[in-house]
Amino acid sequence: MTDSARISINGARLWQSLMDLAKIGATPKGGVCRLALTDLDKQGRDLVVGWAKEAGLQITTDKIGNVFMRRKGRNNALPPVVTGSHIDTQPTGGKFDGNYGVLAGLEVVRTLNDRGIETEAPIEVAFWTNEEGSRFVPVMMGSGVFAGAFSLETAYAAKDVSGNTVKNELERIGYVGDEEPGKHPIGAYFEAHIEQGPVLEDAGITIGVVKGVLGLRWYDCIVTGMEAHAGPTPMALRKDALQVATKIMQEVVAIANRYPPYGRGTVGFVQVHPNSRNVIPGTVKFSIDLRNVDSERLDAMDREIRAFISETSKTSGLPISIEQVSYFPPCPFEAGCVDAVAKGAKEFGYSVMDVVSGAGHDAVYMARLAPAGMVFIPCKDGISHNEIEDTKPEQVEAGCNVLLHAMLDRANAMK
Amino acid sequence: MTDSARISINGARLWQSLMDLAKIGATPKGGVCRLALTDLDKQGRDLVVGWAKEAGLQITTDKIGNVFMRRKGRNNALPPVVTGSHIDTQPTGGKFDGNYGVLAGLEVVRTLNDRGIETEAPIEVAFWTNEEGSRFVPVMMGSGVFAGAFSLETAYAAKDVSGNTVKNELERIGYVGDEEPGKHPIGAYFEAHIEQGPVLEDAGITIGVVKGVLGLRWYDCIVTGMEAHAGPTPMALRKDALQVATKIMQEVVAIANRYPPYGRGTVGFVQVHPNSRNVIPGTVKFSIDLRNVDSERLDAMDREIRAFISETSKTSGLPISIEQVSYFPPCPFEAGCVDAVAKGAKEFGYSVMDVVSGAGHDAVYMARLAPAGMVFIPCKDGISHNEIEDTKPEQVEAGCNVLLHAMLDRANAMK
Repeated sequence: MTDSARISINGARLWQSLMDLAKIGATPKGGVCRLALTDLDKQGRDLVVGWAKEAGLQITTDKIGNVFMRRKGRNNALPPVVTGSHIDTQPTGGKFDGNYGVLAGLEVVRTLNDRGIETEAPIEVAFWTNEEGSRFVPVMMGSGVFAGAFSLETAYAAKDVSGNTVKNELERIGYVGDEEPGKHPIGAYFEAHIEQGPVLEDAGITIGVVKGVLGLRWYDCIVTGMEAHAGPTPMALRKDALQVATKIMQEVVAIANRYPPYGRGTVGFVQVHPNSRNVIPGTVKFSIDLRNVDSERLDAMDREIRAFISETSKTSGLPISIEQVSYFPPCPFEAGCVDAVAKGAKEFGYSVMDVVSGAGHDAVYMARLAPAGMVFIPCKDGISHNEIEDTKPEQVEAGCNVLLHAMLDRANAMK
Repeated sequence: MTDSARISINGARLWQSLMDLAKIGATPKGGVCRLALTDLDKQGRDLVVGWAKEAGLQITTDKIGNVFMRRKGRNNALPPVVTGSHIDTQPTGGKFDGNYGVLAGLEVVRTLNDRGIETEAPIEVAFWTNEEGSRFVPVMMGSGVFAGAFSLETAYAAKDVSGNTVKNELERIGYVGDEEPGKHPIGAYFEAHIEQGPVLEDAGITIGVVKGVLGLRWYDCIVTGMEAHAGPTPMALRKDALQVATKIMQEVVAIANRYPPYGRGTVGFVQVHPNSRNVIPGTVKFSIDLRNVDSERLDAMDREIRAFISETSKTSGLPISIEQVSYFPPCPFEAGCVDAVAKGAKEFGYSVMDVVSGAGHDAVYMARLAPAGMVFIPCKDGISHNEIEDTKPEQVEAGCNVLLHAMLDRANAMK
């Protein structure tokens, strides 16, 4: 056992902070609406920064409004071990998505303060601007600018539906800092988060050790048939675009099932033309979403769907186009960080399993810059981005204990 | 051979009449827009009635605006042998749909006049009000009221999008007659029509002997799954409504293919909820259209789709509802009328095949009242209800020759 064994966070205090922050933008149905860079976001930011100051942390803000809250280490020349997430929410969001990762970080610091524990490397808690992307695109804006995925200018120019820019809104709420995004050193990065999926709950497991984040390939697919009257056109003379499209839709799922356990295949969007009860569909446009945690397997899935479509076009005689419209490579987390999370869970005897994240997180961009890892806790019915998003106090506490120990492991290992 | 053998209609005159009538409501793309009970419909009606009067016919109009144009027979106590169709069009309709049946009837009369041929029973040419149903529903309104499928009051009360009623519009254009709909005797009914499908053209055949009109069953089907994020939800934990729906959509076509040659199965309308690229569909609503020419076979198709849906609901664990929203029974035509059409084609040596009509026609309602039959001629690419609807002069002539001989056969057989 390490010298950090058996140190536990204060679960009640963490829960109370979550509930207090959730009051800002609270919705009647028990959720939270606190869109990025609104007055409510400012109130939320101010509350968290106030708590950080009470805990003695030193605040730095960068030009895209990312906030870093620092607890000094014994050797402040070392890059800090950082944890964080975001406090903006979806329009009908919940209390935990993002907020949990930020307040779990704050609770780690409060616990270390309570115990008077020093770490070798400094520890920081960050919150990243506009992770949700509900008001401004692109999503994961603050961490994306920080990681150089797109420019500060691009982010500044983004407009909401009313035409307000990110730059103006950042200035208005007073969160444009001096620091150049990305110039802030990061020794390692951890993020605690609700799973936003059903796996942990379904398996009855408390802690998910996140091995990585699924890569994805998004496609638009169009099948072109011949629109004709449903009555007078015999089956043999039809060019029914929907019948061909549905074969492909079935294959999308079949492909995912051939790449277990992390293959995913989804058709979420379908548009039939002319979409009339007694007309054979002339055109069907639909989306394909393929995901996997491993690049080679995701590439193999890509080859399989393209081959199937090519073959289906040949056998049906109907033109079928497929165009990739988005690609995020899989993001495996660094082995050392993954191990630190697993070790933390083991020290507390929590039930644990390896999982992957199906959704994007700020940690994906951080993984481009530093060793990174994530801790997942279950959420009720796997539901997130929803006002009924929920999780249990004991799970919230467990995830934070694991975060604490993973960070201590890393911070003290840095020399 | 009968004494009517080798009598031929005047193809050029018929073609000219078609082109003349098509000028009323002509569209720039070569089609016709002459919606029921508009000023243009009045002009079309007046032109046809004028031609009929020139041909010595006696005009009767009933209360729903159906017009009967009578050529006396030797025995005017006999019910007339009637032919007809409609002269209203779709908003972007063609020159032939409906108009051909009316003007072919007029050409039959003109030919008999030219040759001084008397028939035993009277011969009548009818045009029925608002067959298309584009401006006022229900479709096949005039023949439907005539056959008692729905009441005169129902038809009168129908409104267009501007709130004008059928009653007011009929009065406005001066086509409310005295005769009670349905009180007009009919000894037999024939209707010549373009096929509105691809079968004759595909087979290189000039004359389709119409054995009957397909019955249809329309259903709404709803599959209820569970909407969830495409990334975090593993395949095994999904309730993907679209994947289940696409199995049913494939089966609709498979069922039709198991009931050749007249089985038809179409899914024309699909609505996916929430229809978002990265969300597993929670609900899919879609239409099912099953048709067959034979009641027992259509009923068997109905049983098969219901059984498949029941089984699919069981195996998938997802609720699936199916509700029949429309039913028209198959309409087989009377053997004597079908034979008269076949005999007419044979006398001219036209290539001929048995066909069914996939679309509804005024003849379907007439078949409830009297022996009925139809003559089909090919239309280009099977296209109808479209400004590019087209057919060849020699096919137009051939169909009218067959109509003439079928009507003579029937009119002279009546004693």
